Amino acid sequence: MIETVEVKRIVPTEKQYAWTFGGVDPIARIKPGDVLDLFTEDCFGGRVRSEKDLFSKVCEYPFVNPQTGPFYVEGAEPGDTLAIHLIDVQPARDWAASVTVPLFGALSSTHYTATLQDPLPEKTWIYKVDQASKSVRFQALDSDYGTSFPLEPFHGTIGVAPAAFEARNVLVPEAFGGNMDTPEAKAGATIYLGVNVPGGLFSLGDGHYTMGEGETCGVAVEGAMNTVLSVEVVKGVFAEWPRLESDDAIMVAGSYRPLEDAFRIAHTQIVNWIAKDTGLSVMDTYQLVSQAARSRIANVCDANYTIVAKVPKRFLPSDIPWMNGVHEKMRDRGKAVMAGRKART
Amino acid sequence: MIETVEVKRIVPTEKQYAWTFGGVDPIARIKPGDVLDLFTEDCFGGRVRSEKDLFSKVCEYPFVNPQTGPFYVEGAEPGDTLAIHLIDVQPARDWAASVTVPLFGALSSTHYTATLQDPLPEKTWIYKVDQASKSVRFQALDSDYGTSFPLEPFHGTIGVAPAAFEARNVLVPEAFGGNMDTPEAKAGATIYLGVNVPGGLFSLGDGHYTMGEGETCGVAVEGAMNTVLSVEVVKGVFAEWPRLESDDAIMVAGSYRPLEDAFRIAHTQIVNWIAKDTGLSVMDTYQLVSQAARSRIANVCDANYTIVAKVPKRFLPSDIPWMNGVHEKMRDRGKAVMAGRKART
Amino acid sequence: MIETVEVKRIVPTEKQYAWTFGGVDPIARIKPGDVLDLFTEDCFGGRVRSEKDLFSKVCEYPFVNPQTGPFYVEGAEPGDTLAIHLIDVQPARDWAASVTVPLFGALSSTHYTATLQDPLPEKTWIYKVDQASKSVRFQALDSDYGTSFPLEPFHGTIGVAPAAFEARNVLVPEAFGGNMDTPEAKAGATIYLGVNVPGGLFSLGDGHYTMGEGETCGVAVEGAMNTVLSVEVVKGVFAEWPRLESDDAIMVAGSYRPLEDAFRIAHTQIVNWIAKDTGLSVMDTYQLVSQAARSRIANVCDANYTIVAKVPKRFLPSDIPWMNGVHEKMRDRGKAVMAGRKART
Amino acid sequence: MIETVEVKRIVPTEKQYAWTFGGVDPIARIKPGDVLDLFTEDCFGGRVRSEKDLFSKVCEYPFVNPQTGPFYVEGAEPGDTLAIHLIDVQPARDWAASVTVPLFGALSSTHYTATLQDPLPEKTWIYKVDQASKSVRFQALDSDYGTSFPLEPFHGTIGVAPAAFEARNVLVPEAFGGNMDTPEAKAGATIYLGVNVPGGLFSLGDGHYTMGEGETCGVAVEGAMNTVLSVEVVKGVFAEWPRLESDDAIMVAGSYRPLEDAFRIAHTQIVNWIAKDTGLSVMDTYQLVSQAARSRIANVCDANYTIVAKVPKRFLPSDIPWMNGVHEKMRDRGKAVMAGRKART
Repeated sequence: MIETVEVKRIVPTEKQYAWTFGGVDPIARIKPGDVLDLFTEDCFGGRVRSEKDLFSKVCEYPFVNPQTGPFYVEGAEPGDTLAIHLIDVQPARDWAASVTVPLFGALSSTHYTATLQDPLPEKTWIYKVDQASKSVRFQALDSDYGTSFPLEPFHGTIGVAPAAFEARNVLVPEAFGGNMDTPEAKAGATIYLGVNVPGGLFSLGDGHYTMGEGETCGVAVEGAMNTVLSVEVVKGVFAEWPRLESDDAIMVAGSYRPLEDAFRIAHTQIVNWIAKDTGLSVMDTYQLVSQAARSRIANVCDANYTIVAKVPKRFLPSDIPWMNGVHEKMRDRGKAVMAGRKART
Repeated sequence: MIETVEVKRIVPTEKQYAWTFGGVDPIARIKPGDVLDLFTEDCFGGRVRSEKDLFSKVCEYPFVNPQTGPFYVEGAEPGDTLAIHLIDVQPARDWAASVTVPLFGALSSTHYTATLQDPLPEKTWIYKVDQASKSVRFQALDSDYGTSFPLEPFHGTIGVAPAAFEARNVLVPEAFGGNMDTPEAKAGATIYLGVNVPGGLFSLGDGHYTMGEGETCGVAVEGAMNTVLSVEVVKGVFAEWPRLESDDAIMVAGSYRPLEDAFRIAHTQIVNWIAKDTGLSVMDTYQLVSQAARSRIANVCDANYTIVAKVPKRFLPSDIPWMNGVHEKMRDRGKAVMAGRKART
Repeated sequence: MIETVEVKRIVPTEKQYAWTFGGVDPIARIKPGDVLDLFTEDCFGGRVRSEKDLFSKVCEYPFVNPQTGPFYVEGAEPGDTLAIHLIDVQPARDWAASVTVPLFGALSSTHYTATLQDPLPEKTWIYKVDQASKSVRFQALDSDYGTSFPLEPFHGTIGVAPAAFEARNVLVPEAFGGNMDTPEAKAGATIYLGVNVPGGLFSLGDGHYTMGEGETCGVAVEGAMNTVLSVEVVKGVFAEWPRLESDDAIMVAGSYRPLEDAFRIAHTQIVNWIAKDTGLSVMDTYQLVSQAARSRIANVCDANYTIVAKVPKRFLPSDIPWMNGVHEKMRDRGKAVMAGRKART
Repeated sequence: MIETVEVKRIVPTEKQYAWTFGGVDPIARIKPGDVLDLFTEDCFGGRVRSEKDLFSKVCEYPFVNPQTGPFYVEGAEPGDTLAIHLIDVQPARDWAASVTVPLFGALSSTHYTATLQDPLPEKTWIYKVDQASKSVRFQALDSDYGTSFPLEPFHGTIGVAPAAFEARNVLVPEAFGGNMDTPEAKAGATIYLGVNVPGGLFSLGDGHYTMGEGETCGVAVEGAMNTVLSVEVVKGVFAEWPRLESDDAIMVAGSYRPLEDAFRIAHTQIVNWIAKDTGLSVMDTYQLVSQAARSRIANVCDANYTIVAKVPKRFLPSDIPWMNGVHEKMRDRGKAVMAGRKART
């Protein structure tokens, strides 16, 4: 069967980008089941285009990390959870950029881990995308060494309006999602975000063509994206912290400081989630997670740090309809959408 | 000379309280030089009134820690700094309350330092104010022991609208001020807050009748306040983090996590401030601050932790007009106001 | 060619186990090139054998985590580095155990992250090893659910005598190695430990049959091991923090608190190591590592926390003789040893 | 009455200094009740004597922070606590020194909070002691500014042999005491250290003539000391973490990382101590400590950070014989000793 659902293409104008989660009006209203085909600009607003474009010269905080959205999802009420399934995440350009930003990144003092030392030098690296080999090309600045990293596109930032009337800068990850920088937010994954305000108001951006675990310098291989996604509402279930689901695993993202607190949040949440949905006792689940987790460091360089607790489904009771089974439904639909697209091209 | 300045009395209605810094409209417009006489409700919204009033039963997050304000200060532009001088801070009631809140406070796991353990029991302690002895009376719940702590009233929370279009919950301390919980914010002190939005939009609340260093359980002796303050704008000087000044000392509040980062922020800021304003080299200032600081732990229990770097003026070059000398001016004015009030009563 | 090197079998008596790194006499002197076949007891000293054996009843601190060793390596001098290649790491029993320990583990308050709450309950889980399917069997205590985890044996603890005349408890990971709990310390890996005292004095233990990333509850699937390893000395090169090498990757283990400092140590070390050995500039290397790292959380539950920075060799200049190329030499030798063993059986 | 007790004068030779807590033989055996008059060298081993003496040129790690001791106290058994009363702490020289050390101190990246940045410059400041005004004189290096700080001598380092067969570098503070850097360790205070090995094996050093809260640059005004102290054994009471007592307050030092864990240790310990010795409930004590604590940041710059929880006795039930009342006994004795000394001079 070829999916005939309408796919809404959305390319924001420069003035439409969002710079916070919360505190901004939606750019569109959508319905559960809708499929969107979005353009997201890179975290530099497209301003870093050559090695001569130093971040502090061409970008101006807080106009960094533009988000496409927010979207008001009809029927999403506080206490529900939005399910956003990433059907396809494709580089929108054949190049991408990475930089060092003064007083940002894990191996530098920062505005929060403040010292009296001089900042590291500012640099810009431009990467070439090679779709044939599914890779991005790194070229050293100070020598002729080059190498290729696998093209593994994902969205560094995806979130909803926060609770408690807050509006948060798009560089921040927290309970509402945001700048989590987890490579798990890739095509095929469903991201669950607890709804705090009517409509949920999700937005996304910060395309990464590839990234190392921990995003050490604070900046991935940053690029614009064309992303197809679908949206559902899980009624009556509230994800306190962002949950993710793939065909193979369930996950929770914890984002706070120090890094061990991000770990604690993510793992406490996944233990309690599994215990509740499977009927296993909390202590048995604690033991199971301790041996089964495939957790990953997402970033150690933002306003908060992020760790993603990840438990493969193969270690868990089968036939658990995680989040009411919405992932399987959305995945199948996504495959149909992509098959339909392919058929038409 | 008796000060004849008009003092504006402001008692918010329940609907007027602010629950965020940023994101709310001002309740009044004021001018530099204005003197306000404000009522601030306690952090419980006045709902904890007996030992039977447990926090989780009578309070509902996020309607906790109501702020009086915000106030739009005419002429305050981004890049300036608001100077708020606390002329008088007086308990508005003859009793106050403290509680334990589930999963809050330094000696409990919390929503961020998350564990699988049970929370500590919820309790409420009611304190009596004795104005004669300038003390508050503690009575143990589980035995007949009682003791008195000195009445040392201050505002746990004071802040402005944050930068970068953010709105932050009133329980959070950060660069914009907020829930810093420093006993230095008492009568006689001037609090400097960098202006991020036109008018600055400051508000305050969270009266504490007394508090131990670190606010260990996360809750001080909480009470409503009547507070007289004056406001000025320091043009063209931007306090990146909250500064405080008393007759004897200058201070900077750093609020972040982990606690050492709060320390680093506060002390890096005060070193750079002193070096810039005195002409001492940064390294000499670093040495001087290392031996001269009288820094204090403010709280270890909020969304962020706060430490206040404090350097007595007697160790610093004399005749430095810190923040353009506005503290002395406001202090003198404040004394005149209080003298005028006394004369009239 | 069949390797004819002598393999020395060493099974310590109970009195021979080491409880510290540093401060104990060697149990044997060996030469570079020697191959040892060691027995290591499990972290409980073999005392937890059924679900009724609760840790606090059968184990007595500090007699926890017995180490086989230390070994004095002839010719190893301060400033050199020991290279320990794990040729074969095999479960010595067909069962293993995991437990919860009061006030230990990432999702509990601990003696260091101290709170006033009650500890979690103490439990013991016994795992069955299935060599046919290369798995270990988990059985829930409070329900009839069971599942299997892959058998992935490694040593949680391996280290040398520390610098600065210190002796450290065998539960501590730090610059000398120790209780790092990284699954990278498995058969086929070479562990590099900087030599602080003549002979280096390495020991190892803490066999894990499997473990989740982060060792959430603080305890893996713990079992006795039979381990074949070879030892070399890398003269004139000093590994400040533990390095690891596999056929595919180079790694550095950072162990400290908070967890972001473990991350910082590991990644600063690997950047500087790569820059020095390849001639790439530090900033180019910082960028490369930021996109190439496959770093892993080792544990978040010890006296210090451990993160392992890991960079695949395929992203790095080829033909770099990391640590003088000793890994390849030891790996080939190890294969010959195992082939010889197989031939004899 | 004039005290006639013998006071033993001990001036170590250079070879007698201890560089660890634990792992070294005692330099003397003493009895409970003994009074010692000790010389302690400064933390530089007396090698920094002019502004030209840069730390990294004249000092060689780990020969930093020499300790006078250890002393074997007869009758002190594991499970007891040593009580060390500082009768008199006097500068042994009329000058002192402070420095910046590369990659050390709170406002610099360090070997643990590792970054890729350059270290801060190395500097040395020499202070003059003015006994008449009880002050030390700071002179800026880069300008002609000078100022005076109060002479407030104390010992930055005092400790016993650690538990679990450990030996720890003298720069480390932990449960055994060590490099806590608390100004509370001054004349008139009693320091309680839990005994882990027969004789306890205490030593002390690291005289500070003055220091700011937090010891920001990692180095106080460092000077040699002549210190008179007496020693007792509190039988059958074990101080898990260092306790301190003055005439006015009881205290506990917590030393770990991150800084909030030092806070948690210190305050959990003092709550449990007070609850146990007074019979107050733990929750009432938690509340009392939250309002009564006068806690202080000791240092944020060592291998571990230290915070001292401090509760004034005036807020606590009177007539509690803290630590069996040994402080009062030792204080009275100390006064008698000093009166005797004065009478003889």
